Amino acid sequence: MKFHTRKWVKPEDLNANATLFGGRLLEWIDEEAALYTIIQLENQKVVTKYMSEIDFKASAKQGDIVEIGIEVVNFGRASLVLSCEVRNKMTHETIITISNIVMVNLGEDGKAKPHGKTEVEYVADRLK
Amino acid sequence: MKFHTRKWVKPEDLNANATLFGGRLLEWIDEEAALYTIIQLENQKVVTKYMSEIDFKASAKQGDIVEIGIEVVNFGRASLVLSCEVRNKMTHETIITISNIVMVNLGEDGKAKPHGKTEVEYVADRLK
Amino acid sequence: MKFHTRKWVKPEDLNANATLFGGRLLEWIDEEAALYTIIQLENQKVVTKYMSEIDFKASAKQGDIVEIGIEVVNFGRASLVLSCEVRNKMTHETIITISNIVMVNLGEDGKAKPHGKTEVEYVADRLK
Amino acid sequence: MKFHTRKWVKPEDLNANATLFGGRLLEWIDEEAALYTIIQLENQKVVTKYMSEIDFKASAKQGDIVEIGIEVVNFGRASLVLSCEVRNKMTHETIITISNIVMVNLGEDGKAKPHGKTEVEYVADRLK
Amino acid sequence: MKFHTRKWVKPEDLNANATLFGGRLLEWIDEEAALYTIIQLENQKVVTKYMSEIDFKASAKQGDIVEIGIEVVNFGRASLVLSCEVRNKMTHETIITISNIVMVNLGEDGKAKPHGKTEVEYVADRLK
Amino acid sequence: MKFHTRKWVKPEDLNANATLFGGRLLEWIDEEAALYTIIQLENQKVVTKYMSEIDFKASAKQGDIVEIGIEVVNFGRASLVLSCEVRNKMTHETIITISNIVMVNLGEDGKAKPHGKTEVEYVADRLK
Repeated sequence: MKFHTRKWVKPEDLNANATLFGGRLLEWIDEEAALYTIIQLENQKVVTKYMSEIDFKASAKQGDIVEIGIEVVNFGRASLVLSCEVRNKMTHETIITISNIVMVNLGEDGKAKPHGKTEVEYVADRLK
Repeated sequence: MKFHTRKWVKPEDLNANATLFGGRLLEWIDEEAALYTIIQLENQKVVTKYMSEIDFKASAKQGDIVEIGIEVVNFGRASLVLSCEVRNKMTHETIITISNIVMVNLGEDGKAKPHGKTEVEYVADRLK
Repeated sequence: MKFHTRKWVKPEDLNANATLFGGRLLEWIDEEAALYTIIQLENQKVVTKYMSEIDFKASAKQGDIVEIGIEVVNFGRASLVLSCEVRNKMTHETIITISNIVMVNLGEDGKAKPHGKTEVEYVADRLK
Repeated sequence: MKFHTRKWVKPEDLNANATLFGGRLLEWIDEEAALYTIIQLENQKVVTKYMSEIDFKASAKQGDIVEIGIEVVNFGRASLVLSCEVRNKMTHETIITISNIVMVNLGEDGKAKPHGKTEVEYVADRLK
Repeated sequence: MKFHTRKWVKPEDLNANATLFGGRLLEWIDEEAALYTIIQLENQKVVTKYMSEIDFKASAKQGDIVEIGIEVVNFGRASLVLSCEVRNKMTHETIITISNIVMVNLGEDGKAKPHGKTEVEYVADRLK
Repeated sequence: MKFHTRKWVKPEDLNANATLFGGRLLEWIDEEAALYTIIQLENQKVVTKYMSEIDFKASAKQGDIVEIGIEVVNFGRASLVLSCEVRNKMTHETIITISNIVMVNLGEDGKAKPHGKTEVEYVADRLK
């Protein structure tokens, strides 16, 4: 799993108990899944369709750095299935895991549309 | 299911495709689940422990009003299991459903602690 | 008065004295008044025209849950007059009251337009 | 009336009708009233106690620049009464006016406390 | 240098060390530079093109009030060069200085366009 | 240069001209520089002290994905000097570059403190 995006837990990210607000974490994951999908499918029109069960294994506190890892589970015809792990950057302790996030590729009409991709591609390679 | 909190979908809530950002929706749900739990357990120290699979059935667009419904599934010893549905207030179309959200009651030491509750209570009744 | 929307007071909602920022509270009230009006008038194009005096009776602190109540005072020809009370969900202590919030119904041209409504309606009834 | 703080109306400040969200405007005013009071009373512990009626005379749209004017109406024993006008910086069209905003000076115990001020002072003069 | 806009440092503006987040400060400066330019050039289409070195001389903490000063350094053909100082409103301690911020005037096509201005103008004078 | 953190440009990130708000971009860079420094110096108490000139080479629009690259220029005694490039993830077009960002390591007393580091380390290696 590749971990790219990192977040610094600031006061605006805390819940009323002064630990990382779970809702903020889910927001970060959804954004990361969306942009990962856009990069792979080369289409800005994608939506989150499904997330499998979410296990909050640990929390984070102000000042912690968390990193978000995404991995492809499967390329569907009009979808991309991802898995996600968020961990503490300094200790590598797992904060949350989600086994399946189903992202759907949309056409101009807003309906699911085959994307024609079958494997992970790197932007650097595409630009050669 | 009781639907309490309502949200007005504003530009700051949109993803780059101009539909309601899924991450924002998850943030709203997590806040609602937390505050519902605090009300029931009469304890401000609660955390989200688990969410079962999330199905994004429909989206919402700028100007829509969504309402968030929460229902108790089960009272555990130190936990409270909730289910959630978010729907469009005007059409009652379902936007998202989550069957099980496990919230955990914490003690001063930050560890799970029995809450002693076994049924839904109304604040108005408590205050009589 | 019906209390629907609830908010969990988080660090991002505090002023520099660590109590609930009054401006955030006014933001919440204005959103609630707008969406209540949209629901009643079945028109997304509404604006806040006037608020009568605002009395800040009590504050709230991090971790508190507040709920926002709205009631119809009067149906005007192109307007809807609401009253509002925000209270602490757990203690029912009143935080703020506003006797009159005048919302105006707009037409496509952005000008006031009669809405034809004379009484409170419930969406559930409309959908039957 | 002195107009100091200016805001650039950005997408995040809009309501669902794409005009300046009234709640955001009230948030800006409350912050300006608070900081003006802190500067005059030389005390960071102040709260908004009351606002007289608010008249939304005009709106603003994305890209507009608004400026917020504050003027002292009266120095009370433990309070400061302000008036406020928000206007479009380029056209000087009035957007909102509030005749009386009562700010209260607090002591360490969080209770109203005489502030000993009777007239507007300029920080530059104090620092001489 | 004229100091107009003022900000009240709230919890949402802090970094994880509980001092004013430098990124937030840069965001405030960029907004102020943009709106100052819009006012002078009477054109809403302007962009930040360049900032000279930024020296963070002091920080600020929760509850502090900071004010942002902008001054014109030079009128270019299609640009406006500004300098900026942010200071603590109560102590006049300098927090940050930037000697040159180059703002560019754009035409409808998004390309640099001469603005025809050669000196600072006051809106109040234009409206006479 | 390693590019880690990615951002999806959403409506809340736009300026009034509907391109990526420069202030938001600077906020993202400052956060990335801070967290990169925390990771390298293994100390959560760090501050941004200086940024060399900033050249805004291109903009980004809603839906674009940008990635932020950070590289160590030099290890000082109590400081870390970084360089930064932000580029469009899909086209690799450079959006902004900053040659020198000086971050300072602080001790408990809030004063600069030697950090004892002389080269880039990877967390994965430290955890072995």
